[in-house]
Amino acid sequence: MTTERKIIVNIATSGDGYIARPDGDIEWLSSRPAPKGFYGIPEFLRTIDTKLFGRKTFEHALRTGVTFDTKTRNIVLSRQPPPASVPAGIEFVTEAVGPFAERLRGTEGKDIWLMGGGGIIGAFLDEGQIDEFIISVIPTFIGEGIPLIAPRHRLVPLQLLSAHTFPDGVVQLHYRVQKT
Amino acid sequence: MTTERKIIVNIATSGDGYIARPDGDIEWLSSRPAPKGFYGIPEFLRTIDTKLFGRKTFEHALRTGVTFDTKTRNIVLSRQPPPASVPAGIEFVTEAVGPFAERLRGTEGKDIWLMGGGGIIGAFLDEGQIDEFIISVIPTFIGEGIPLIAPRHRLVPLQLLSAHTFPDGVVQLHYRVQKT
Repeated sequence: MTTERKIIVNIATSGDGYIARPDGDIEWLSSRPAPKGFYGIPEFLRTIDTKLFGRKTFEHALRTGVTFDTKTRNIVLSRQPPPASVPAGIEFVTEAVGPFAERLRGTEGKDIWLMGGGGIIGAFLDEGQIDEFIISVIPTFIGEGIPLIAPRHRLVPLQLLSAHTFPDGVVQLHYRVQKT
Repeated sequence: MTTERKIIVNIATSGDGYIARPDGDIEWLSSRPAPKGFYGIPEFLRTIDTKLFGRKTFEHALRTGVTFDTKTRNIVLSRQPPPASVPAGIEFVTEAVGPFAERLRGTEGKDIWLMGGGGIIGAFLDEGQIDEFIISVIPTFIGEGIPLIAPRHRLVPLQLLSAHTFPDGVVQLHYRVQKT
């Protein structure tokens, strides 16, 4: 029996719900000492084989010197044509979100990590293409920034699967998106 | 021995961090069936004797027909002069946040519930006048709205005191604001 591949957002937010400062800065997050177990990310990585990035998140990663783990597929979704040069192991896709997500789900594989940012998360959510959210709430208010989901009127009921507290005060909320 | 009175924000937010829709609407919150125990609010009420409201929150309450519980002091803070007519049991204060909070802390009494909205929470936070946040995270994304704290660059470290999960999927995060 094959289980359908899930598309999962696994992301950290500030205590006031932002994924980054307005300019994309995440020093408030990256400067924290990594606790033993790293919030379950290593286990989570074993359940996925594909990462999806929005264009802005991808470009911010390039600018800040992030390297891409080529043990997974890395796909950048963008409405714009790809840049002249793309790092090895990165696929650029300009397909619309709905058909792309259906096609991806239709192929064999593990679950899919939707990395963000808020724009691509909003687009997938509006197409009913997100199965779960794992949100690690950092015990810091940053005051303003990029919201988890690109702003638009929504009403999305969630089912809480678990809430896990880490010794450093991070709380990880795991939700299933309820299909309405 | 007298313990100093604490100023505490106890508020619900959507799963994406908003306290209300852009127009103040909280139907996504108020339409939920109230669970037994009502998220600990009755116990919390026994620990406070004063409620503080921002002007917009107060006016929204008036418009939506909310009545004020006169078993506690109800104080509205505003930079504008009070309206011509104020309901019985409501005090209007136009003093600056810092001196007002110090004066209030200096009088005998129980803890103080800072009701919101985001503007008054931001002003108190910036003056170092909030001791604790109790945030009940509702398992619903609303997509856009009024943030918990009026937007401004901040870096406010928090200490997680507890995280409590309710049967309906609400997670209540209790933080102490760390004085820097």
